[in-house]
Amino acid sequence: MLLRQTQLVSRTVREASKEDVSVNAQLLVRAGFVDKLFAGVYSYLPLGVRVLAKIEQIIREEMTRIGSQEVLMPALQPREIWETTKRWDMEVLFRLKGDGDRDLALGPTHEEVVTPLVGRFIQSYKDLPASVFQIQTKFRNEPRAKSGVLRGREFRMKDMYSFHIDQADMDAYYERAKEAYTRVFDRCGLGAQTFLTFASGGPFSKYSHEYQTITPFGEDTIHLWREKGIAVNREIADEVRDTPEWKGAQLEEVKAIEVGNIFQLGTRFSDACGISVQDAQGTKRPVLMGCYGIGSTRLLGTIVEVHHDERGMRWPEEVAPFDVHLVSLARSDAERSAVERLVQELDARGVDVLVDDRDVSAGQKFADSDLIGIPVRAVVSAKTLAAGSVEVKRRVSPEAERVPTQAFLAQFA
Amino acid sequence: MLLRQTQLVSRTVREASKEDVSVNAQLLVRAGFVDKLFAGVYSYLPLGVRVLAKIEQIIREEMTRIGSQEVLMPALQPREIWETTKRWDMEVLFRLKGDGDRDLALGPTHEEVVTPLVGRFIQSYKDLPASVFQIQTKFRNEPRAKSGVLRGREFRMKDMYSFHIDQADMDAYYERAKEAYTRVFDRCGLGAQTFLTFASGGPFSKYSHEYQTITPFGEDTIHLWREKGIAVNREIADEVRDTPEWKGAQLEEVKAIEVGNIFQLGTRFSDACGISVQDAQGTKRPVLMGCYGIGSTRLLGTIVEVHHDERGMRWPEEVAPFDVHLVSLARSDAERSAVERLVQELDARGVDVLVDDRDVSAGQKFADSDLIGIPVRAVVSAKTLAAGSVEVKRRVSPEAERVPTQAFLAQFA
Repeated sequence: MLLRQTQLVSRTVREASKEDVSVNAQLLVRAGFVDKLFAGVYSYLPLGVRVLAKIEQIIREEMTRIGSQEVLMPALQPREIWETTKRWDMEVLFRLKGDGDRDLALGPTHEEVVTPLVGRFIQSYKDLPASVFQIQTKFRNEPRAKSGVLRGREFRMKDMYSFHIDQADMDAYYERAKEAYTRVFDRCGLGAQTFLTFASGGPFSKYSHEYQTITPFGEDTIHLWREKGIAVNREIADEVRDTPEWKGAQLEEVKAIEVGNIFQLGTRFSDACGISVQDAQGTKRPVLMGCYGIGSTRLLGTIVEVHHDERGMRWPEEVAPFDVHLVSLARSDAERSAVERLVQELDARGVDVLVDDRDVSAGQKFADSDLIGIPVRAVVSAKTLAAGSVEVKRRVSPEAERVPTQAFLAQFA
Repeated sequence: MLLRQTQLVSRTVREASKEDVSVNAQLLVRAGFVDKLFAGVYSYLPLGVRVLAKIEQIIREEMTRIGSQEVLMPALQPREIWETTKRWDMEVLFRLKGDGDRDLALGPTHEEVVTPLVGRFIQSYKDLPASVFQIQTKFRNEPRAKSGVLRGREFRMKDMYSFHIDQADMDAYYERAKEAYTRVFDRCGLGAQTFLTFASGGPFSKYSHEYQTITPFGEDTIHLWREKGIAVNREIADEVRDTPEWKGAQLEEVKAIEVGNIFQLGTRFSDACGISVQDAQGTKRPVLMGCYGIGSTRLLGTIVEVHHDERGMRWPEEVAPFDVHLVSLARSDAERSAVERLVQELDARGVDVLVDDRDVSAGQKFADSDLIGIPVRAVVSAKTLAAGSVEVKRRVSPEAERVPTQAFLAQFA
């Protein structure tokens, strides 16, 4: 993908709205990745769409790798299915009328849809385990939505649901899901900051697991056992402290953002929806379920919270909107032709390049490049052209270096 | 992608609901591509998700090719923006409360969001033309939703919006959009049945253009001038009949499904939203807009309406859920190993293969293969293995033929 900034629909803007105090919203709005429609509801502009698509593709690949199959369930859900599970009174449910005077909800989660849906296709233990996921837009009527794209009223999320004949199979899949989650956060550049965190199970089971990413601006507080690479949510820290596993743990209290959560649902939903299967002896058995969430728009915001400096964002390679930000300081037609040749050579190598071909000052170009945060900035000017080189600066390093043009291109061979 | 039917979450089912009388819903439900939640609202199962993703990728490529940039706008939209354009009373709007007692709508279309969004980034004629598109879930509170996935209350759609300084530039882009639309329908296997159709412009302009796909079960009636490859919607047939362009036209009345529509909006929305730009003389000029829709879920349903026979669906190659349906009739371990080697060789060549490894009769497998409608069926049995061949049948042809295994594989080299 090759895109020229003179063609790019979005622009960098000097200031984001004062209401949007979060780092992620400030930087994403200023760099032209997102635009706020109202509190907790954002449009994604071309650069933001590119990052979101990369994050969602990583998630899709890792869920597929553990045998889960992609589906797409509706946001519009009839009241009856929420009454079956006794959750129609859930606080964050958006409720509306449609199809005449019918009561509908906008799905904040999909247990009510997925349980009967998969239930229709599983009759015997031979049909299990089964696992499906979707990457979809979800709706939660949050009382306060003030953390940029971290806590939206409309947001994108991957939710996966698994179905099992017994606890041993449930546990085995749960461990595979943990490994898939670790790979997702590693690939999104959050591996070093993200910890499996024991949390309260809420209404479904004694404990659940969160994936918490440490950052000073997190809404959650966790107690991190750094040596072991695990943590416990503050809510249940006192409760677990005396258990054998956590005895003698050195716990640090840190702020974090919950980027994923997984929990075992037991038979909570399969019982409510009347889903059972026959075991090898022909006896009806309840179905155990697991549920596994990652908010993809939240993950995008978290990456910004973790990877930025005072000048702007610093995208990890695998989720960056482009691989190379080619900043042209060409002034003559000959210089512009030389830049164009380089652009074409990068494009031919399959490198995603954003070209700054705008008629603005070098200072403005450098400032915008730091703000947008593409991993590699390559400057081409009369000076570098005379030396047969480009000036390469990685966004995460303080120093630029002159690299012969052929050597620069050879990296992408 | 390699998927075994014993692992596939969905199943073929003998009968779809009697209420769902449309051909597309009957076949898609029976083959396990979709599942109805309530009237006009469907879940997409793994096979359906694969087709939908292919259709949407074709649309994405063709819109990108004419310089449009992908964005993603919210479904949740505040009442005020719909009052600005005087459309809050639109009949099909789902209305709800959120963010306290605030009035919200679920977007059936996005002029109200996109016009101020793009408007913030265009200041001068140099910033034009601009074009953005999104592929997104839309909501329309249809009074009747009875055509399967053709007319949903929740559906997927690509909507593109373009912005221009003058009529000449608007017209030039409009022609490019027409070419992009033609490529989309060609690639989706509907080229031969789909005709540019003159239609009433509705509230925005004198005429608009629809893309109508001829099928006996279409909701629309068009008058087709087959020789010229164009049509006119019945609504305005009398009106145009006497114009010079249509004089002497040989018109056939046929049923059709509207798979796309494009129209020029003039300054209807840019005026309402107060969007203007400076021209080369520094004078403020209104911005002209064009709008271009394709329903991707409707397109999926239309493909089924056009490409099926009494036994099931017949997917065109580029949108088929898999390239090859490998039907295994292996009975011994040695035969199963031979099938597995073939599966691995296809997979290694990047062929998408659905393997029917179920323990059901050959008759059931053939019936399901016809129903699912993958373009190539390859049967492997003791007999074909003994002959070093596979029995290949294209879904669209009546005859199967024995092909030496190596020759079969060589097609996918």
